[in-house]
Amino acid sequence: MNKVDHIGIAVKNIEESMDYYIHTLGLEVMAIEEVASQGVKVAFIDAHNVKIELLEPMTESSPIAKFIAKRGEGVHHIAFGVSDIRTRMKELHEKGVQLLQDEPKPGAGGAEVAFLHPKSSYGVLYELCEKTKGE
Amino acid sequence: MNKVDHIGIAVKNIEESMDYYIHTLGLEVMAIEEVASQGVKVAFIDAHNVKIELLEPMTESSPIAKFIAKRGEGVHHIAFGVSDIRTRMKELHEKGVQLLQDEPKPGAGGAEVAFLHPKSSYGVLYELCEKTKGE
Repeated sequence: MNKVDHIGIAVKNIEESMDYYIHTLGLEVMAIEEVASQGVKVAFIDAHNVKIELLEPMTESSPIAKFIAKRGEGVHHIAFGVSDIRTRMKELHEKGVQLLQDEPKPGAGGAEVAFLHPKSSYGVLYELCEKTKGE
Repeated sequence: MNKVDHIGIAVKNIEESMDYYIHTLGLEVMAIEEVASQGVKVAFIDAHNVKIELLEPMTESSPIAKFIAKRGEGVHHIAFGVSDIRTRMKELHEKGVQLLQDEPKPGAGGAEVAFLHPKSSYGVLYELCEKTKGE
């Protein structure tokens, strides 16, 4: 793993929660985008050494909608930056880690991402995140 | 806020979960300590740009024990480093944020810490963390 790229947080309303991060916590928004393949609207907040990724579900079938329905708003995942996602997925699989998919899928910010099952990671949903373009 | 100091993760067994972070994820342990005032055993894992703080409850009355009983293992809190915790607590209180205590309390690593109520922070338990000694 390189370092923690971002912390993903499920929120019901991205405008309201962004307002909190900006005006109450004093942080800045870096980018807002929609990731149609995941059914989410995303805002990246600059927490200086890591990004905070606010995730608002756009559809009821979005994994984020299901997460909020089950557990409420809160931390959804932690993403490690990696430089060769397919190799890291293979290594983790060989070490007995259950991955949530066999192939990387497109994530926010033009990244390729893959998730480790929380049962393998002592309750934490970890994401591997490879940026195809330099940040 | 300065930057994210650490991500606190509630685990049932710190030895088992450390083994996962070391041998599967390839990260290193920085320190292990007991924080009697919080009823927890703590291991700091070096994730390069942030620390991952594994928290194992030492008593059934520990907040971490209650968290695990209610929600299972997983991300418990996110800690922002701050340089003047009392001033930041006052500012946040004046902005309408509910704090979980009126005064900072001792945390791991010789820090002074205070928590923001997740209801104020859209489901996330944020910690303010002031290091009294340089890292």
